[in-house]
Amino acid sequence: MDFSPTPRVEGIRSTLRDFMAREVLPLEREVAATGFKESLAALKQARARAKETGLWAAYIPEAHGGTGLSLTEFAHMSEELGKSPIGHYVFNCQAPDVGNIEILMEYGTEEQKARFLEPLVKGETRSCFTMTEPEFAGSNPVWLGTTAVQEGDEWVVRGHKWFSSSADGAAFAICMAVTEPDAAEPHQRASMIIVPTNTPGFELIGNLSVMGHRGGDWASHGEVAYHGARVPLANLLGGRGMGFAIAQMRLGPGRIHHCMRWIGICERAFDIMCRHAATRELSPGRPLGMKQLVQGWIAESRAEINAARLMVLHAAWRIEKEGVYAAREDISLIKFTVARTLQRVLDRAIQTLGGLGVTDDTPLAFWWAHERAARIYDGADEVHVEAVARRILKSYGMKVAK
Amino acid sequence: MDFSPTPRVEGIRSTLRDFMAREVLPLEREVAATGFKESLAALKQARARAKETGLWAAYIPEAHGGTGLSLTEFAHMSEELGKSPIGHYVFNCQAPDVGNIEILMEYGTEEQKARFLEPLVKGETRSCFTMTEPEFAGSNPVWLGTTAVQEGDEWVVRGHKWFSSSADGAAFAICMAVTEPDAAEPHQRASMIIVPTNTPGFELIGNLSVMGHRGGDWASHGEVAYHGARVPLANLLGGRGMGFAIAQMRLGPGRIHHCMRWIGICERAFDIMCRHAATRELSPGRPLGMKQLVQGWIAESRAEINAARLMVLHAAWRIEKEGVYAAREDISLIKFTVARTLQRVLDRAIQTLGGLGVTDDTPLAFWWAHERAARIYDGADEVHVEAVARRILKSYGMKVAK
Amino acid sequence: MDFSPTPRVEGIRSTLRDFMAREVLPLEREVAATGFKESLAALKQARARAKETGLWAAYIPEAHGGTGLSLTEFAHMSEELGKSPIGHYVFNCQAPDVGNIEILMEYGTEEQKARFLEPLVKGETRSCFTMTEPEFAGSNPVWLGTTAVQEGDEWVVRGHKWFSSSADGAAFAICMAVTEPDAAEPHQRASMIIVPTNTPGFELIGNLSVMGHRGGDWASHGEVAYHGARVPLANLLGGRGMGFAIAQMRLGPGRIHHCMRWIGICERAFDIMCRHAATRELSPGRPLGMKQLVQGWIAESRAEINAARLMVLHAAWRIEKEGVYAAREDISLIKFTVARTLQRVLDRAIQTLGGLGVTDDTPLAFWWAHERAARIYDGADEVHVEAVARRILKSYGMKVAK
Amino acid sequence: MDFSPTPRVEGIRSTLRDFMAREVLPLEREVAATGFKESLAALKQARARAKETGLWAAYIPEAHGGTGLSLTEFAHMSEELGKSPIGHYVFNCQAPDVGNIEILMEYGTEEQKARFLEPLVKGETRSCFTMTEPEFAGSNPVWLGTTAVQEGDEWVVRGHKWFSSSADGAAFAICMAVTEPDAAEPHQRASMIIVPTNTPGFELIGNLSVMGHRGGDWASHGEVAYHGARVPLANLLGGRGMGFAIAQMRLGPGRIHHCMRWIGICERAFDIMCRHAATRELSPGRPLGMKQLVQGWIAESRAEINAARLMVLHAAWRIEKEGVYAAREDISLIKFTVARTLQRVLDRAIQTLGGLGVTDDTPLAFWWAHERAARIYDGADEVHVEAVARRILKSYGMKVAK
Repeated sequence: MDFSPTPRVEGIRSTLRDFMAREVLPLEREVAATGFKESLAALKQARARAKETGLWAAYIPEAHGGTGLSLTEFAHMSEELGKSPIGHYVFNCQAPDVGNIEILMEYGTEEQKARFLEPLVKGETRSCFTMTEPEFAGSNPVWLGTTAVQEGDEWVVRGHKWFSSSADGAAFAICMAVTEPDAAEPHQRASMIIVPTNTPGFELIGNLSVMGHRGGDWASHGEVAYHGARVPLANLLGGRGMGFAIAQMRLGPGRIHHCMRWIGICERAFDIMCRHAATRELSPGRPLGMKQLVQGWIAESRAEINAARLMVLHAAWRIEKEGVYAAREDISLIKFTVARTLQRVLDRAIQTLGGLGVTDDTPLAFWWAHERAARIYDGADEVHVEAVARRILKSYGMKVAK
Repeated sequence: MDFSPTPRVEGIRSTLRDFMAREVLPLEREVAATGFKESLAALKQARARAKETGLWAAYIPEAHGGTGLSLTEFAHMSEELGKSPIGHYVFNCQAPDVGNIEILMEYGTEEQKARFLEPLVKGETRSCFTMTEPEFAGSNPVWLGTTAVQEGDEWVVRGHKWFSSSADGAAFAICMAVTEPDAAEPHQRASMIIVPTNTPGFELIGNLSVMGHRGGDWASHGEVAYHGARVPLANLLGGRGMGFAIAQMRLGPGRIHHCMRWIGICERAFDIMCRHAATRELSPGRPLGMKQLVQGWIAESRAEINAARLMVLHAAWRIEKEGVYAAREDISLIKFTVARTLQRVLDRAIQTLGGLGVTDDTPLAFWWAHERAARIYDGADEVHVEAVARRILKSYGMKVAK
Repeated sequence: MDFSPTPRVEGIRSTLRDFMAREVLPLEREVAATGFKESLAALKQARARAKETGLWAAYIPEAHGGTGLSLTEFAHMSEELGKSPIGHYVFNCQAPDVGNIEILMEYGTEEQKARFLEPLVKGETRSCFTMTEPEFAGSNPVWLGTTAVQEGDEWVVRGHKWFSSSADGAAFAICMAVTEPDAAEPHQRASMIIVPTNTPGFELIGNLSVMGHRGGDWASHGEVAYHGARVPLANLLGGRGMGFAIAQMRLGPGRIHHCMRWIGICERAFDIMCRHAATRELSPGRPLGMKQLVQGWIAESRAEINAARLMVLHAAWRIEKEGVYAAREDISLIKFTVARTLQRVLDRAIQTLGGLGVTDDTPLAFWWAHERAARIYDGADEVHVEAVARRILKSYGMKVAK
Repeated sequence: MDFSPTPRVEGIRSTLRDFMAREVLPLEREVAATGFKESLAALKQARARAKETGLWAAYIPEAHGGTGLSLTEFAHMSEELGKSPIGHYVFNCQAPDVGNIEILMEYGTEEQKARFLEPLVKGETRSCFTMTEPEFAGSNPVWLGTTAVQEGDEWVVRGHKWFSSSADGAAFAICMAVTEPDAAEPHQRASMIIVPTNTPGFELIGNLSVMGHRGGDWASHGEVAYHGARVPLANLLGGRGMGFAIAQMRLGPGRIHHCMRWIGICERAFDIMCRHAATRELSPGRPLGMKQLVQGWIAESRAEINAARLMVLHAAWRIEKEGVYAAREDISLIKFTVARTLQRVLDRAIQTLGGLGVTDDTPLAFWWAHERAARIYDGADEVHVEAVARRILKSYGMKVAK
């Protein structure tokens, strides 16, 4: 094993650290104070400068207009971007667009790519992914109420979705809908269909109020209704009944991105915590960092973040080497490990800062509130826990009576 | 030991449960959706109906216009009120007014009582308590920068405060300020002084942005500047240098109130969690509550809430029987025990609800964000941990070299 | 609620504290050094002196030769006895005899009482309880392989048992055996039958090696075989198929005893931890107790022990007032709460003592090893967790498809 | 980063897995049942066969009679050996001999090497390391009472040591003793001196009783007195006052060995847990592994073990690349991370096995008892936590008033 980072990775990290310090962190404060939608003009400028770094949409192959970083290289980039809530957006690496771009690259027809993929890659449009439904448990994703029925040369989509992140302002949605209700296997019943948001019958009911905020534009979670929205048959992605297969493909690398973003948050929180502990005095000459309980938080956070990063890089390496399927246990393990590490590190950082930690003077409070969902989205931790254990137990010969 | 609740306590609880269900919970949703300040008219009506229950400001002795509940009785009441974020406010039992009322009852002159206490008890005014300062660590409360200097027959107050909860709209502040900078004992340097908020030189700089919100009116945390604000010498509370002695007195019962309020939150969260687990189906006929990890959260929450309540009631009983000083270990123990229980129970309830748990469809998300501070305010958990341990170790003869 | 202990309880505690300090703790060291079986003579003398306190077998009604303490009173006594591994034995309050005595008092015929109960109460004999079987999961106690078949006027018992605590030296075993294999309800299939250990066909295969020790006499866990052991039909306890009903009855108070014994262990461990922290110096004048991590262990242990004790006393009070059935949720909650508290407190005490903590200079190491089972015996924690949660969820209307 | 193991590592692991299954595991049961000292003859035979694998004392350079594995390669070997309590001993890789061998190789004179190192490497003798003292806190290792005074051409050693592991049967002790009491820096006061155990004045008072066992031979922890034991001046190791410098050097690789041994224990425990969960039935057709709480233990253990291994391999890689000093933060982080992981994994495995888990039918109980010390020896976890945090906080500019 060789744990050395490549020179290219070191160069990317160095470039990004500079850019983040100079361009992103000042803007972050403005966005926090005035709102994401209200800061779109300033964000646009930052994006223009991000393009100049050569790291715009860097996970996308050069053939598609990106930089063509490997999964592992982009993992490192994602950590740096994750240090600010707006980092990924500034570099056009934000969910859910990254995932949608991957789907379109892999399964899109030439026509779909020209119409939907290109403007996404350029950052001219945004998109959303409508899968989760309020009436059905998200932890059983194959149980869906939304349907797409073929009528003539059109799909007619009916259903109710929520947590359609960034639907507000999106140009189109990828909709997971049941097209093959009679398929024997539940995971072969749904398909993915592209629905432009200006399609009659597509309604953004509103942005969900999450942790006290409805947010806006990219920084929002939409509730969407499909009232018989009609799109051409050609808007099908991949093939009939392939919805979950495509979703699975998309999730592997996506979890690497997320986990490294979370690690970026951890590192920023760690930095804020240490800076405060080192300089805040409890009385003259006695800094907070002398307190052994605070020292415990710092040392344990350092250990957990290091461990988490190694696990994620190892999982990325395995995906690259053996593919998503072979690495699925690793992917599940990092999902819940890093999400929990994230919450613990944020918790300790806030406790170290005391009252300051719950104010919006640092991004800790934002993450405390809005990344609570990290343990829920992309498969609740418990779903991954169960999947990993069942796979392991099967290898030990566990048999369950029907 | 006799764990039976008294008939009076059972009556109070029953009255409150009815009132909360009928009057408060519907209003809670309105407040959550439109904001506290925007709901003042509706809140005023609810307060009028609360007065009719005979439980208005119920911890206040009848002589002062209240119901005269004992500390233990009010503890039970506080749990019921705690089940909604607006429960205490509706019954005029909200912090920081409760604490200020106690100080005024105990230490106020007749003139102070007539001018400041009476309208507070009636709910005609509100007040705030300005103690914590951004420049000094809250965990060392005796280290203050704010001063009050006697000039002629006036106090001249200069300083900078934050986390002055509910300063927005308050009629007056009780200000903790150093008046005896040369006292040998740090905890004898400060005094409490009443400063009406319309005093020239009193400035509410603004409400702090906490977890993404500045809030308004009672539901806010102010940043306050004293620019040489002048008040009559008669606005001193208790005596010169008595600031911390009074604060200590006030904190004992106050922590009982808070802890029982937190237990109320726990019970509401528990109820939301169980209702969801029992009825949300993962697939037809297979409710979420069948999952053993969810069962674990439910059983552990039940155990922890029961334990927390018994500890708090025991501490209240001890305060009533032996006084705050004798019960100070118990008071510290419940502070950190219940604050941590609160966070764990909220965490489990949110995880049980999944995506729904981070939306504002339930109060869980509000509490997750805004009660993160429970482990910080009223003495950070670690301050209490250290105080308890030092006292115990002293009883074992621990001696520390200077 | 009135948390005052009664004068009688205070008297009992005071008597026991004296006795434990004077008689039991010195003997404890001898037993630890030389073994239980090797110390029987000295233990016999201590038992004789215990009788003089009037607290011998104190939970037994006066009519049966005991002191007739209430469940709550005995709970307090059990805490004091629990402070030494031999406390309960010295006062003839040790498991499994207490439980067997309760069964015999409640369900025994006059003949059974005369022959089996009386010498047990006097401490002239010991007994064991054979239920768990190596071939079947202990967490599903109704699934048993041992059978008792009626042949003429005898029961013929065949089966294999383990964790038959204290079988070594016991005069008789109470055996849980299937007598009604065709009963519809699994929990109505087994009966309890008294089998004297000198019955042909009763074999003590040996004492299990547990945590490196086989132990001896009372301090052992036997593996037992019934090779067609024959006893008179009159040795049936209660009635055919009543085995589990009797076991349930027995477990309620038994769990109170155990939990208070564990709390006694916690208090002893807490005392050892604090004494060490207060006096062990890291360097001259700097005791270990100055370290905030150690302070955290002390304060958290204090909080958890206090909470645990209140929960157990509350459960005991409820059993006394409303019966075991009404209190079954409380009984399950204390089982897992106190067992976990016990492990955490022992863990912290050992860590505080460092190397000394793993030696046998204190009883911490013994308890660390031998009370690991507390989370397993008397129903594994997880069995109680699941039972509590299912009951709660049922009250919320949870319905599960078959 | 390249996470591929080298072919050499894969070969070593494969060889060891075979050998462990064939030779060590059967012997492990015998040792557990009859005692280490009583099994010396059988152990000797196994050691002879171990030599034939070419992996005897494999961390030792070929020049000194070993296989010359790199630190990283030996880390992998240590994991395999750790799967049995006797694995390291069989391959002559056991503490404290490994550490003593390293010291002798690095600092020994030719004479010392010939006399003390060679027979150790061959496995003809054993050694011990006497440092910790009962009268002084192990967490402040520079505070020692043992002295070595030069008299003529001899050192005269006086002092009292404990936790001198494997002193029983050792040919010599390396003794940490104060030789420069007046050195300004406390860590420059002690030296290491070789004291053959047959030196008059060297007394093995006895083996400590640890977790109920005094053990014997290698498997023991001695209490040692130096009653003015005299050894030649030439028995000094390295130089006067270099005791702690040498100890530090020795600890870096030693902690890698220990941590990988612990990971070996974790993997064995994980295997036992999964095998039991997969095959133990709660009722016909319903294995224990269906329980989600058990699944949680399995998945979390898998994640934690993977993380721990990556951290340790990363630390080993860093020691190899940058040296022990540069890697000291990593070394501290793995010390407490892996020790805690070990305890959690053992705890979960025991809980999964239920009663079986506390018996000596598996090595889980042995490790539960005897590896509790992992969080204490080699620097208590808290010592490492504090060291890491102080170093980090210093990099943030923390300044503490004297």
